[in-house]
Amino acid sequence: MRPEWNNFVAGKWENEVNVRDFIQKNYHQYEGDDSFLAAATQNTKDLWNQVLDLMKKEREAGGVLDMDTKVVSTITSHGPAYLDKSKETIVGFQTDAPFKRSLMPYGGIRMAEKACSDNGYEVDPEISEFFSTHRKTHNAGCFDAYNAEMRACRTSHIITGLPDAYGRGRIIGDYRRVALYGIDFLIEDKQAQKDSTGRVMTDDVIRLREELSEQIVALKMMKEMAASYGCDISKPASNTQEAVQAVYFGYLCSVKEQNGAAMSLGRTSTFLDCYAERDLASGKFTEEQIQEFIDHFIMKLRCVRFARTPEYNQIFAGDPLWITESLAGAGVDGRHMVTKMSFRYLHTLTNLGPSPEPNMTVLWSVKLPEAFKRYCAKISIQTSSIQYENDDLMRVTHGDDYGIACCVSSMVIGKEMQFFGARANLAKCLLYAINGGVDEVTKKQVGPKYRPVVGDYLDYDDVMAKFEDMMEWQADVYVNTLNIIHYMHDKYCYERAEMALHDKNVKRYFATGIAGLSICADSFSAMKYAKVKVIRDEDGIATDFEVEGDFPKYGNDDDRVDSIAVALVSRFMTAVRRHHTYRNGIPTTSILTITSNVTYGKATGNTPDGRRKGQPFAPGANPMHGRDTHGAVASLSSVAKLPFKDAQDGISNTFTIIPGALGKEDQIFSGDIEIDLNK
Amino acid sequence: MRPEWNNFVAGKWENEVNVRDFIQKNYHQYEGDDSFLAAATQNTKDLWNQVLDLMKKEREAGGVLDMDTKVVSTITSHGPAYLDKSKETIVGFQTDAPFKRSLMPYGGIRMAEKACSDNGYEVDPEISEFFSTHRKTHNAGCFDAYNAEMRACRTSHIITGLPDAYGRGRIIGDYRRVALYGIDFLIEDKQAQKDSTGRVMTDDVIRLREELSEQIVALKMMKEMAASYGCDISKPASNTQEAVQAVYFGYLCSVKEQNGAAMSLGRTSTFLDCYAERDLASGKFTEEQIQEFIDHFIMKLRCVRFARTPEYNQIFAGDPLWITESLAGAGVDGRHMVTKMSFRYLHTLTNLGPSPEPNMTVLWSVKLPEAFKRYCAKISIQTSSIQYENDDLMRVTHGDDYGIACCVSSMVIGKEMQFFGARANLAKCLLYAINGGVDEVTKKQVGPKYRPVVGDYLDYDDVMAKFEDMMEWQADVYVNTLNIIHYMHDKYCYERAEMALHDKNVKRYFATGIAGLSICADSFSAMKYAKVKVIRDEDGIATDFEVEGDFPKYGNDDDRVDSIAVALVSRFMTAVRRHHTYRNGIPTTSILTITSNVTYGKATGNTPDGRRKGQPFAPGANPMHGRDTHGAVASLSSVAKLPFKDAQDGISNTFTIIPGALGKEDQIFSGDIEIDLNK
Repeated sequence: MRPEWNNFVAGKWENEVNVRDFIQKNYHQYEGDDSFLAAATQNTKDLWNQVLDLMKKEREAGGVLDMDTKVVSTITSHGPAYLDKSKETIVGFQTDAPFKRSLMPYGGIRMAEKACSDNGYEVDPEISEFFSTHRKTHNAGCFDAYNAEMRACRTSHIITGLPDAYGRGRIIGDYRRVALYGIDFLIEDKQAQKDSTGRVMTDDVIRLREELSEQIVALKMMKEMAASYGCDISKPASNTQEAVQAVYFGYLCSVKEQNGAAMSLGRTSTFLDCYAERDLASGKFTEEQIQEFIDHFIMKLRCVRFARTPEYNQIFAGDPLWITESLAGAGVDGRHMVTKMSFRYLHTLTNLGPSPEPNMTVLWSVKLPEAFKRYCAKISIQTSSIQYENDDLMRVTHGDDYGIACCVSSMVIGKEMQFFGARANLAKCLLYAINGGVDEVTKKQVGPKYRPVVGDYLDYDDVMAKFEDMMEWQADVYVNTLNIIHYMHDKYCYERAEMALHDKNVKRYFATGIAGLSICADSFSAMKYAKVKVIRDEDGIATDFEVEGDFPKYGNDDDRVDSIAVALVSRFMTAVRRHHTYRNGIPTTSILTITSNVTYGKATGNTPDGRRKGQPFAPGANPMHGRDTHGAVASLSSVAKLPFKDAQDGISNTFTIIPGALGKEDQIFSGDIEIDLNK
Repeated sequence: MRPEWNNFVAGKWENEVNVRDFIQKNYHQYEGDDSFLAAATQNTKDLWNQVLDLMKKEREAGGVLDMDTKVVSTITSHGPAYLDKSKETIVGFQTDAPFKRSLMPYGGIRMAEKACSDNGYEVDPEISEFFSTHRKTHNAGCFDAYNAEMRACRTSHIITGLPDAYGRGRIIGDYRRVALYGIDFLIEDKQAQKDSTGRVMTDDVIRLREELSEQIVALKMMKEMAASYGCDISKPASNTQEAVQAVYFGYLCSVKEQNGAAMSLGRTSTFLDCYAERDLASGKFTEEQIQEFIDHFIMKLRCVRFARTPEYNQIFAGDPLWITESLAGAGVDGRHMVTKMSFRYLHTLTNLGPSPEPNMTVLWSVKLPEAFKRYCAKISIQTSSIQYENDDLMRVTHGDDYGIACCVSSMVIGKEMQFFGARANLAKCLLYAINGGVDEVTKKQVGPKYRPVVGDYLDYDDVMAKFEDMMEWQADVYVNTLNIIHYMHDKYCYERAEMALHDKNVKRYFATGIAGLSICADSFSAMKYAKVKVIRDEDGIATDFEVEGDFPKYGNDDDRVDSIAVALVSRFMTAVRRHHTYRNGIPTTSILTITSNVTYGKATGNTPDGRRKGQPFAPGANPMHGRDTHGAVASLSSVAKLPFKDAQDGISNTFTIIPGALGKEDQIFSGDIEIDLNK
């Protein structure tokens, strides 16, 4: 056994890259409460004050403190940067100064230019020239391949938020591998993977071989980058501090090269606890020291910044990073996976204060120990900074070493990834069905010239048949647009650092998503149980609707309408599944527009459910605001009926509740609780 | 009809890109002799003296006059350059000064750097950095995907001269389209092609759509480049001068972006004659003026330069460009296609003097008029600068609008292209068969560990069986290496300018080639008809052979050995055909190592035919030097037995003859006659 692994329980993890096996053999369950936790050290407080000061300056500067306009970011493009080298136990920034945003034009030079110019900076003209003339970008590639229909659908927002002008994200490197194995072992492993590809050089094999070569380059660069901070990550980490540092370096490399919409962290806490337990047992480190490493690690994650445009921030309601860390959960052997480290991670919300990043996500299970559950509740109440997801559900599919990318996309760490696909606007699709493919806002023929609805009233069967046809078309354009996006992302903006920390044979989910589900369900309910009169404009386009009478509304546990929502989800997924997907990605869909529902609503006309033009959609799978009149449980029950098998990438329900309703009055409660209804 | 087309015979060429139809409807056969030809004008003489002076300076400077080290060459990267603007009727240089070699790193930055440094120049470090870090090259892509076996085969020269460090060439844009249609029409056509791709976005469709987009960009840049010279090529050319200029601009764009091993011109003379006849008839231009346009055009072609490394020049015995122009030939309707322009092109060899470039290639047919044949013979004798190929043979396959790329690769202009594939070294393969895959020079195990030949004498059947197995392996590695090369060339060094002047659905030949055919044939003949004793070194490797007795040698019209050569060609082609080829290219092979046979010989040990280690191979399909002892006709007959169906990319025979033998004593004859034996 390698000396760095002394006192760890042996297993097949020693001879193959298998972090799960290491964790399962080495983690120590913790049943106790939070009384062991250490407060922030003076160094932590000092450093955090520095960060708070930088954040303040950043706000004062209008949101951006500094931007790199000359150096295109790579893993090794920048020398080391520190807050206060003498106090930092975990080091590393994206560029050569804290809060200086890096220049990442691989995704699109115009996007990079705009992110700069909107913040008062200008990209070095030589770089602009180079990335316009000689080095094509993901964005340019997409627009070279799009057809007229795709461009029209994008413009009219019947498909929306496509990651063709920003990084797709949703790929989580297994950053733990850097700590457990060291880079040299990982390079050897990648070389062996390369040697194991087929001899017949089809396009697929060639692409894979080139990608593996790029991954090896990235691993070598990681080592070089770490060395610039005086750290040797060629070998396995030998203690908790080195392990935390190595995990962070792995993540840091990713955010030095990619600015994906979600750059999630994975499931690192239980893993790191194995090191902490060993160091506590040997007396190498005290609890205070270990908490300090974690505080400094989390502090660094809170300093990650990307150069974004206002439009991006509008879609995502700010500049979220979704540095999601998946905590706790249970193993397939029945043991819960709560460790002291699960507490320490959440304790950073106390030591450093509340924060949306990193996105602390508790994988909730009935098996979690009571003390941990209580601690979670306490910290949730204090900070509103914890996300909960259903581990008992997801463990069935993914086992016990998956993590959440972004808010609800589950994937096995290092073995699965997702091609992120944003949304199809189903509400607009319904209007296209009614208007024979003519956009209700622009009056342009965007969809196919199917027969529009005629007559003064909407007939349920007639509109449903037309809607199904239109949805088939929408799914077709949508999936093929995504095929282009992911082909071009791989070609021009490949995530070599993240993929270097994946297995060779990765399972790829081809994610799609829908927006406007509750609008569609309610619209059809109105047609069936009330009467919906069509109001047409001078061009004969149905631009408004009058509902005569009442009708069951989604969100009240009423099967008459909930069954419509369920059928629509299945129907859409069936349409998606018909199509060729890039790299044979496994098609999934999600219903989780947590913030972009506002943007989507702006682009969509009046709908037959009574929603007015421009009014926001309900977020995710939520009922439309105010229509769930039968209480929280009924509302949740409606959402809970949606079939996970047809929305495997997640269903989200945004649920706001007054603290008093939960019997807690500790503080004024603000913010939403995201409840993941994966089931 | 468009005004530029007045007086042309109408046809479907007006409404679709169809240059052949235009030619067939509009060309004027010429049966007369060369008496109409005009001498060089004073301007031509002045300009040519300038060129000669530049050539002299170039030689004095060691072979290179100037190199661009800062500006990466694109169609529009450089402003106009002239010899003497007031005298030039046809304008355009690759860079901003005549004879200044352009910087083309897309194929490989190290190659570009070395081409500079070997000539005393240094590439701008920023460009080196950029092309190493952010903009990958064809060469880097190949080495990322190669496997260990491919690298070993490359190093040991069992596959040789692979276009992974230089441009593949062998793609002829239909430069005539620029003149006949103008760029705007061609852009519209390309847009329509893009609109006609499938809706299902498979990788192939996406790649095609992106390529068509790149082609449109190239067309727009062509227009811009021409405008910088004060020429409007958006519209069709309206007279001979404009047509010649437009054809040249098309070609110039290609050599501004690509430095392929062969950058051929196509079949332009008969096309241009249509304009000349119209202008002569209307009195627009005199014969002297028209000859001046052609002289200036050819002069420009003689000024094309690339930055090459000494290694490249070694493979190709200098820096040939293979600006091949295919002249004359006959139509499928039986009419010969000799026009006055055929004479004018060849007449440049008189007006400007002999030159290997452009590579004037007469498509020889029994139908060519006697006067033209005589004129060809006269100019051949005077200048040794004409290549002849068998039109009656190639017309069967390609029709009457094909051209020759490089020396013998025939393809229909604008409708077919070739993925060039250099050579498999069959002589070395034979030695691998004898030594069980161990390289006779390096002693390394390069090929598979098949059983070596045992015993003191080579047994024909035993060695043949082993050779066939080894050839199967060689063809496998070879074709798969080429699959990588062409994938990466398309990815990192796509010929957008040339492909913009092709149809959408291009027929792609996947060319392979063999070297050492006569060595193998003679070796097997020695085994069969004499005795070949094996001499092994201290490692047991067969490193030499002693032939006891005489044996029939290829090149004497002796079926005993010629049949072996024929069988080997078919056997190799069968092995090649078994494999997956990139983009479903149609596999072909060639036997035409005209110069590189020297290099290949250097890397190959003693062979069983008695050839010594390091000794050059015979060029192409030639008999080994001195072994064809039964006269010219017998030698040619042996070569002529090789089956064209199994060597469709051409078979070359280098044949040197004393002028007296042809009854001509006009001058001292020097140089080779390349006889194309496509049959």
